[in-house]
Amino acid sequence: MKAVRVHQYGARPTVDEVPDPRVTDPFDVLVEIGAAGVCRTDLHVIEGQWADKMAPQLPYIIGHENAGWVREVGSAVTNIVPGDAVILHPLVTCGLCRACRAGDDVHCANSEFPGMSRDGGMAEYLLTNARAVVKLDESLQPADVAALADAGLTAYHAAHKAIPLLYPGSFVVAIGAGGLGHIGIQCLTAMTSAQLVVVDLSDDALEFARQLGADHTVRADSDAVRRVQEITGGPGAQVVIDFVGEQGAEHQGIAMLAEAGSYFTVGYGGTINVPTIDIISREINIIGNLVGSYNDLADLMALTAAGKVRLHTSTYPLGSALEALDDLDNGRIRGRAVLVPGSE
Amino acid sequence: MKAVRVHQYGARPTVDEVPDPRVTDPFDVLVEIGAAGVCRTDLHVIEGQWADKMAPQLPYIIGHENAGWVREVGSAVTNIVPGDAVILHPLVTCGLCRACRAGDDVHCANSEFPGMSRDGGMAEYLLTNARAVVKLDESLQPADVAALADAGLTAYHAAHKAIPLLYPGSFVVAIGAGGLGHIGIQCLTAMTSAQLVVVDLSDDALEFARQLGADHTVRADSDAVRRVQEITGGPGAQVVIDFVGEQGAEHQGIAMLAEAGSYFTVGYGGTINVPTIDIISREINIIGNLVGSYNDLADLMALTAAGKVRLHTSTYPLGSALEALDDLDNGRIRGRAVLVPGSE
Amino acid sequence: MKAVRVHQYGARPTVDEVPDPRVTDPFDVLVEIGAAGVCRTDLHVIEGQWADKMAPQLPYIIGHENAGWVREVGSAVTNIVPGDAVILHPLVTCGLCRACRAGDDVHCANSEFPGMSRDGGMAEYLLTNARAVVKLDESLQPADVAALADAGLTAYHAAHKAIPLLYPGSFVVAIGAGGLGHIGIQCLTAMTSAQLVVVDLSDDALEFARQLGADHTVRADSDAVRRVQEITGGPGAQVVIDFVGEQGAEHQGIAMLAEAGSYFTVGYGGTINVPTIDIISREINIIGNLVGSYNDLADLMALTAAGKVRLHTSTYPLGSALEALDDLDNGRIRGRAVLVPGSE
Amino acid sequence: MKAVRVHQYGARPTVDEVPDPRVTDPFDVLVEIGAAGVCRTDLHVIEGQWADKMAPQLPYIIGHENAGWVREVGSAVTNIVPGDAVILHPLVTCGLCRACRAGDDVHCANSEFPGMSRDGGMAEYLLTNARAVVKLDESLQPADVAALADAGLTAYHAAHKAIPLLYPGSFVVAIGAGGLGHIGIQCLTAMTSAQLVVVDLSDDALEFARQLGADHTVRADSDAVRRVQEITGGPGAQVVIDFVGEQGAEHQGIAMLAEAGSYFTVGYGGTINVPTIDIISREINIIGNLVGSYNDLADLMALTAAGKVRLHTSTYPLGSALEALDDLDNGRIRGRAVLVPGSE
Repeated sequence: MKAVRVHQYGARPTVDEVPDPRVTDPFDVLVEIGAAGVCRTDLHVIEGQWADKMAPQLPYIIGHENAGWVREVGSAVTNIVPGDAVILHPLVTCGLCRACRAGDDVHCANSEFPGMSRDGGMAEYLLTNARAVVKLDESLQPADVAALADAGLTAYHAAHKAIPLLYPGSFVVAIGAGGLGHIGIQCLTAMTSAQLVVVDLSDDALEFARQLGADHTVRADSDAVRRVQEITGGPGAQVVIDFVGEQGAEHQGIAMLAEAGSYFTVGYGGTINVPTIDIISREINIIGNLVGSYNDLADLMALTAAGKVRLHTSTYPLGSALEALDDLDNGRIRGRAVLVPGSE
Repeated sequence: MKAVRVHQYGARPTVDEVPDPRVTDPFDVLVEIGAAGVCRTDLHVIEGQWADKMAPQLPYIIGHENAGWVREVGSAVTNIVPGDAVILHPLVTCGLCRACRAGDDVHCANSEFPGMSRDGGMAEYLLTNARAVVKLDESLQPADVAALADAGLTAYHAAHKAIPLLYPGSFVVAIGAGGLGHIGIQCLTAMTSAQLVVVDLSDDALEFARQLGADHTVRADSDAVRRVQEITGGPGAQVVIDFVGEQGAEHQGIAMLAEAGSYFTVGYGGTINVPTIDIISREINIIGNLVGSYNDLADLMALTAAGKVRLHTSTYPLGSALEALDDLDNGRIRGRAVLVPGSE
Repeated sequence: MKAVRVHQYGARPTVDEVPDPRVTDPFDVLVEIGAAGVCRTDLHVIEGQWADKMAPQLPYIIGHENAGWVREVGSAVTNIVPGDAVILHPLVTCGLCRACRAGDDVHCANSEFPGMSRDGGMAEYLLTNARAVVKLDESLQPADVAALADAGLTAYHAAHKAIPLLYPGSFVVAIGAGGLGHIGIQCLTAMTSAQLVVVDLSDDALEFARQLGADHTVRADSDAVRRVQEITGGPGAQVVIDFVGEQGAEHQGIAMLAEAGSYFTVGYGGTINVPTIDIISREINIIGNLVGSYNDLADLMALTAAGKVRLHTSTYPLGSALEALDDLDNGRIRGRAVLVPGSE
Repeated sequence: MKAVRVHQYGARPTVDEVPDPRVTDPFDVLVEIGAAGVCRTDLHVIEGQWADKMAPQLPYIIGHENAGWVREVGSAVTNIVPGDAVILHPLVTCGLCRACRAGDDVHCANSEFPGMSRDGGMAEYLLTNARAVVKLDESLQPADVAALADAGLTAYHAAHKAIPLLYPGSFVVAIGAGGLGHIGIQCLTAMTSAQLVVVDLSDDALEFARQLGADHTVRADSDAVRRVQEITGGPGAQVVIDFVGEQGAEHQGIAMLAEAGSYFTVGYGGTINVPTIDIISREINIIGNLVGSYNDLADLMALTAAGKVRLHTSTYPLGSALEALDDLDNGRIRGRAVLVPGSE
């Protein structure tokens, strides 16, 4: 099959011909890829930023946002059958460790991460397991939802964790209305009646945010903290969800909090730097957020099937993967890019 | 009356003769001080560290950990009567703002903080209000509990917030077994069956921690993180409560966390400095902790009356306040010091 | 002033001329009534059903859903001034007991309940206290919101308690789309993305429910349980909120639950009757619901000011109180009736 | 192998010679039974009370509280190896449905229940799956813990669910200090500092409860509700855990609640019968409790290994199963009975 592989960190990946993966384990599931999302993390992978944390054996196939159709299943698989359209949870988990047994798939003690730690989905086929497949509602197509598998799931997860902290009349700030942010905004709009303030550098993104349901928008300039405080009537926001996490967003985000507020880190790249006296005197919290659980992904699909979340995508053939990565790197993609095998 | 007042930041306070405070507001309560705790924060106040945040008018009476007997009440006070023995919540709150109405006294929009923002309890009498007084069980004396009013309440509050994150077989680390820490250790022992690891610089403090119920103790040296990981069987602790918050404890505390763990900041002085990629990839949380609520103080008194929390105190006459402050500053106090008016 | 008073249980109230109430306590607030809701509970009061639980001294003024304008305040009142438009929390609470200190106003150990335990708001003036007044947003008028003070607040409170149990793809059933139910439906629509099933006897009410955002509607006949199970794909609903609580709704509501589901009792009149083996083998919960807290009322006003909750009201002059009660008793009121002093 | 089988409801089981079970599925685990608990539910099974709910095919082997040693595992099993000492979660779950994915094993959509729905553990060997086995700490022996697998797990689960409702100074009532209750009492003592009131018919049981840590004990006679109210200073208990659930305990338990309190049903047999007006006016909750999750069982084993829970057991050889059942039926067993194969 055709596949996009990283051979060396810092060098461009290539589109190679490789053998198809095969079902060998009782829990294995072989999926024909319908679409694979192209994510900023892929750029970081190629640069080598994740080399130590994930330690894949080179060369390997990237692509960690995948959806498609089940083609073959192992002998112990009971939840799906060949032909089912599915979206894939990014992790292949064991189901037996304490985290898995608590519904916290993401902290599985024995997980693999296709596209990060082993072969991923920028290819015609992907091997995963029965615990990673969420069956799609008939109204949804793999190409429409693939990019929700990681970016969207992360945004949903953070929004969902924030819900209990919000109430009508409270304020939630979303920093960044891009790939993750525009999903997060839709999730928040669907799940809370708190007032939503969106902060972004771009006027276009802010206009887009308003269309998606933002109650207030703020330009991400040096005056942004003061503007958020003003919108909240002084005290700041109960919750800030930072989809950027670098270039100063991480400092502004914390400054935007009301007393006892919570700053949710989603984007990354920068460094949190805050005196302990400020943390205790304001009694604020800094909350880490990784991708959501399997049930979170099922819930996000329910929101999507109900029309409450819509992903804005640009489609590329699998063979144009490098062009898609370049476009992403140069800010030429609005929403998310997806690779669709067989579309050339 | 006699009172310990700060006249100028950076200079030693003096014991002055001042007029007695008087009940004027319907909610006022006048308390004869039975004991006032001497706290490291008093040293910081004297140095001027809190001058901007609290902005008291100089000269003023310090002392924010107070207990005693009610002597006079305003016309609208219904919850206590003259003669009642009471411990004082450190804040004088309004009872009408959203935070007060949610039971979150500490974030009252209109609070005063006797001993910090206005005249406190290192004196013969203190003026507070009806919302600050917790009636003592007959088995408790003001001098036994005064130092629980702020330091103890902070330790209880952090321990109490951590309980839902713990389960039998999980691990909670307490960094620091001193003034706050030794209360926190007792609260944790009373309220959770998680395994308790105590980290401190001093072998004496670690021995004391074992007597109070610590399951494991670790010297706070450069090997402490590795030791905690070893004790937990590898992954680290679900919860770290840092009663120190400076001199590297804040970095070691975060490093001791398991994935998805929570670091509770209680002590202060240092600076949190952590890349956003570490926060998200480990999905860890940094939780701020200030003093507890009124009900938290009532609960801490219930624990104390039940014999589950014992404060280790050294007693000084009010007139020896400067000596007590010096002893504290020079590490000569084990547990907490309290000033007892009329004890000379 | 003019006031609607109950002189004897089982007899019709009369519209009497009585002295105006007066501010005497430092925390008192005198409110000129802008509107007073007419509630099914008033009918129960007149019949004597609440005589033992509330024990008011006859004759007394009924009316427990009140909004208006502040006319005079006691010396200790700091949160409002004469002229402010306000809605009144139904309870006059102490602010000093454990429940009040936990934000749980409704279980105040020392509360009064104007209109139930003492003089209420079907009059030109009402005496309450500073803890009961929520200032209205400029966009809201007392006559528009009065009936939210108790019925609406109860519906909001139950909906709000149910939110953490719901997720996209889960099901919540509302039984009854009448006075309370139509508010509950709007609160649920604003605060959750779970699928909402509304059950009612009347086709008109079901049509109304669809307009307010119900995803599915079911006639409250003998087939209703089966229909709900069918809509949920078999297992039943995660949450059922029963705004009726009598005439079989209480049995059907419990039967509609999925395993581990929760039945919220709001309406009353019937009797829960369920074998303990059914409760444990299905691991279901039965959750009581009374009126919400002060902050719940503030939040409901935020929802209302944002246009997310709209009360459907019929207006009567204060002097036509008996006609309004008759119309309610005979099912001639759609939404809620309110009495407006000075409107004749 | 030898096994205790039910051939006909209402008739005595017999000890039969049957073929050994065999590993066939990749997730299967074959366990040599070290001990099987004898439970009141076994008596109910024999009477046929569970025939409709569980629908096992007769004849079948009873015994749903099992511990032993792994003897053989399927090809996909990675969490244990032959030779490991284990306790068995009572359910064999799928790991793939929404409930399993949420850590809520007990509501698995595809579970089997050895001893209830298919062959159980009153035998020399039992077939279960990899998701049911909790590896024992070296300090624990199967015969010491078997009876914790269901009865103990249920008691732990209810106690654990109640913890967030309790605080120092609050009251929790345990009704029944027998097989389940004596475990529940130990769990509560280990996990909360609330005051524990134990209610039982027998003075011996109450004396035993005091030894296990009960703060107060009350005879379960007609005066019990009043006594509990008195102990709580009037209002009643925040939580009542009813390990009996019949013969009036279910009515007394609800009557013992404070306003906003929660009654936890664990035992069964009786019928809850309470007017909806009482549920709403007191805003009380009735909480169903089934057996705990896999992680709950792991946590209970941690408590047991730490010496905080001790099961009081009487041992019988497997061949004396009928004698053990008779002794249980006739109230001749203190604590729990276990059958130990090979002990004759």
